[in-house]
Amino acid sequence: MMESNQKRISDAIIRRLPRYYKQLSDLEEAGIDHISSQSLGERLQIKASQIRQDLNSFGGFGQQGYGYPVSELKDRIAKILHIDKKWKVVIVGAGNIGRALSNYSAFSNEGFEMSALFDSNPTLIGKRVGNLEILDTKTLPDYLTSNKIDIMALTVPQNAVKELMMIAEKADIGAVWNFSPADIFSPKVVVENIHLTDSLMALSYHLGNKK
Amino acid sequence: MMESNQKRISDAIIRRLPRYYKQLSDLEEAGIDHISSQSLGERLQIKASQIRQDLNSFGGFGQQGYGYPVSELKDRIAKILHIDKKWKVVIVGAGNIGRALSNYSAFSNEGFEMSALFDSNPTLIGKRVGNLEILDTKTLPDYLTSNKIDIMALTVPQNAVKELMMIAEKADIGAVWNFSPADIFSPKVVVENIHLTDSLMALSYHLGNKK
Repeated sequence: MMESNQKRISDAIIRRLPRYYKQLSDLEEAGIDHISSQSLGERLQIKASQIRQDLNSFGGFGQQGYGYPVSELKDRIAKILHIDKKWKVVIVGAGNIGRALSNYSAFSNEGFEMSALFDSNPTLIGKRVGNLEILDTKTLPDYLTSNKIDIMALTVPQNAVKELMMIAEKADIGAVWNFSPADIFSPKVVVENIHLTDSLMALSYHLGNKK
Repeated sequence: MMESNQKRISDAIIRRLPRYYKQLSDLEEAGIDHISSQSLGERLQIKASQIRQDLNSFGGFGQQGYGYPVSELKDRIAKILHIDKKWKVVIVGAGNIGRALSNYSAFSNEGFEMSALFDSNPTLIGKRVGNLEILDTKTLPDYLTSNKIDIMALTVPQNAVKELMMIAEKADIGAVWNFSPADIFSPKVVVENIHLTDSLMALSYHLGNKK
């Protein structure tokens, strides 16, 4: 029943779940064992009714008057987000952003294992970044088939994206985390775009209209 | 008249404008001088009617039958986004992400000048990252008042955010680009959050439900 519910969950709810999870982790660390939707809402600037509605779409949580049990709710959200599993990630592109991602410990804490880092630049291949050695992108297709990789992070220039998406689709990679400026669409692969420049432009819009 | 129109522009439209701008830049580079809303929509997987409606909210663009004039539309979107101006950015936090941002040439190409990089770690202060020297975060308030900084990028741990937001508000910084895991709310400062872990969790959700 929960499975079929999940199919209809809107993107807006999926975006809020990691924020709930994060707050609940902080609360758990602070030793707080129950929290009301009101208090959670104040911390996140989300209406309490919205939080209750979001959580209800995954079945019953919490009890009227006692608030939500923090650890239990956190664990259930982890299950819904599937971050109770381990996911294997490769990063393609050992530039600044690629190197930063491969060293970012917050990811491994949440079950995302940075398995390998690739680049096509001969002067980078063989160098170490943290505990990863930069591998030749030529070996990527073989690497993907011999290791069960779930997520491919693309931190490459736009002109490299098309070929890498073909490799990802052929290797049946489940998801692409795209940091390149390209807009990627794939019928087979889930794509999440982090367009840093777009985000700065949104700030610029608001800044300009403020002044 | 355009000014008053802009006040009512929805966040969803603001998010699409950088994508239009990016496509138009690519088209201009490819030597294409006109494009229909249909073709632009296919490239972006956005309905042509949506594009026309978005652009109409800023006044008249293009001509029936000829399509939009690429360079002119690009320049007008740049004006709407205020990226025809120069914005000065400081980065606080010289960790992996902070260093990556300070070296990212795509930002300066669009008018965002990375002016300075700060850290409170004595072993980092004085070191160089690209053409920036890492400055002591203690000197940040003075730096902000003597230089006209528009945007503060926060690439710091969560526990450093509160104090830095007080500094930003006191110095009347217009916008904060937040890479920390904290949820930041400010009545005075425009905030744009890049929560990388949240984005991975959204991928995880889709991956888990796919299998």
